[in-house]
Amino acid sequence: MKARAQGVLVLLAGWTACVAVAEAGTPASPPRTMADVIAASTPADWRPLEPENTLYLQLAQGRVVIELAPDFAPQHAANIKALARSKYFDGLAIVRAQDNFVVQWGDPEGKRSLGDAKATLPPEFTVKLTPALPFEVLPDRDGYAPEVGFSQGFPAARDVARGEAWLAHCYGMVGAGRGNAPDSGNGAELYVVTGHAPRQLDRNIALVGRVVKGIELLSSQPRGSGPMGFYEKVEQTAPITSVRVAADLPVAERESLEVMRTDTERFRQLVEARRNRRDDWYLVPAGYIDLCNVPVVVRPRP
Amino acid sequence: MKARAQGVLVLLAGWTACVAVAEAGTPASPPRTMADVIAASTPADWRPLEPENTLYLQLAQGRVVIELAPDFAPQHAANIKALARSKYFDGLAIVRAQDNFVVQWGDPEGKRSLGDAKATLPPEFTVKLTPALPFEVLPDRDGYAPEVGFSQGFPAARDVARGEAWLAHCYGMVGAGRGNAPDSGNGAELYVVTGHAPRQLDRNIALVGRVVKGIELLSSQPRGSGPMGFYEKVEQTAPITSVRVAADLPVAERESLEVMRTDTERFRQLVEARRNRRDDWYLVPAGYIDLCNVPVVVRPRP
Repeated sequence: MKARAQGVLVLLAGWTACVAVAEAGTPASPPRTMADVIAASTPADWRPLEPENTLYLQLAQGRVVIELAPDFAPQHAANIKALARSKYFDGLAIVRAQDNFVVQWGDPEGKRSLGDAKATLPPEFTVKLTPALPFEVLPDRDGYAPEVGFSQGFPAARDVARGEAWLAHCYGMVGAGRGNAPDSGNGAELYVVTGHAPRQLDRNIALVGRVVKGIELLSSQPRGSGPMGFYEKVEQTAPITSVRVAADLPVAERESLEVMRTDTERFRQLVEARRNRRDDWYLVPAGYIDLCNVPVVVRPRP
Repeated sequence: MKARAQGVLVLLAGWTACVAVAEAGTPASPPRTMADVIAASTPADWRPLEPENTLYLQLAQGRVVIELAPDFAPQHAANIKALARSKYFDGLAIVRAQDNFVVQWGDPEGKRSLGDAKATLPPEFTVKLTPALPFEVLPDRDGYAPEVGFSQGFPAARDVARGEAWLAHCYGMVGAGRGNAPDSGNGAELYVVTGHAPRQLDRNIALVGRVVKGIELLSSQPRGSGPMGFYEKVEQTAPITSVRVAADLPVAERESLEVMRTDTERFRQLVEARRNRRDDWYLVPAGYIDLCNVPVVVRPRP
């Protein structure tokens, strides 16, 4: 009996290994599945990662690729890049893995010099809504915000009445740890969401980007046994080989990835294919999709 | 700098290690945090696990405790217990770990005899709403169902107009894999949700219970590299030592756990403490809580 729980792949990690990348073209019938949508996509539906806003977190087990969100957290993004360029993170470690919540890395004791990077930063927890900020509204209602959707590929929320927008704590999003003081985060300690979206953190802490490849290297770390999932012994922590800005590496050493754009008709088709599953396994379509269930589609550049 | 991403523990796993279990009593002021609510709880706020509806999944790394939900999937629960009692699972393995989705165990090739257990079962994907079915409504709106809440401690949904209720695919919920045929699941292959709630599975597959202890042993498994996170080599799979019904073990070998009841004023206080965080770290209370963000509180029996 080959009973399997599901018939379709869901997430970024490992995704590209499993879906044949078909040539562009128009399908004979409307797309039924995410694979159909992707198979019908054209080069205009994709965008490359910008090397200047891409980080490589190198672990012994492999490389984690992080896309920064400078339009939402410009000072944090700049500080993190300054830290990476001073090799601040090299030799530090993953210090925390709390089940169904976050994995965190950095220097919790604060022993290492920040070099030219700033020790405190303004709380970039929300941004002002401006006409220049792209925002594609997801029609599905959300409990945590008046509107949710995507901004430059990132899951986001906005409140038009308050004139604010912010990134949403979905699986794979990366943020900058802080203490109780709102300005106490500086990007020297980063976390990634590895569980059900802790959306209560939205507007309370600076999200700085998201993992676009290799999240399984973080999410499968053994959970820490101390309070909040911190490891209790140094030998339990996974060392960080290096953190680099992609632009600083020779082209041959960069990841060649592209991300599906979120401001296209193709992406709307993809969302619809996930909102109402039409593959043979499903009996009841949900008729709804939660912001954090919309997949982030990343693949090697053809 | 001790910047940490959050100030409060969230989940069942490891939870009991971190919160001091205080004596019962009335707090001087209204509870601010989940820890306050638990500290003020009385024995009537808790219930023990029923040994006849508790499974122990024993791995080399430790024991996973699963609470079955016989009121929602009676035939699946009975079949799984029959399989456990025939030692069906002993020596099988975790065969799948798909990032941000599920971890699955069993016998995907179907080589092992099911013994007296049934090979197919009716699709127990929903149950009829009856006055006998407890259901505490969560006031917060939900996108996937007209109403959500808790039934006997399990996250659940209901549709009064259709006269149906069902369990919800939150983190830690356990289900029975099936093929495309609705009756092809039998409990011989089980999965646990280890990512953002895949609520689109609700009403499409039988949920049979949830993990109440040890989920980190499943969720931190290395992700499988094959399609849908299946492992590609036998040596990558984690062996299952045994699966047992707690009632079949001597009392001294059972876990002594209790679960916070969900049909109490105390639980409503706990939900409110999570809906609007009042601890010092938070700046903006969410004013909302997603069903799958309500914590399942489990602790050793005093």
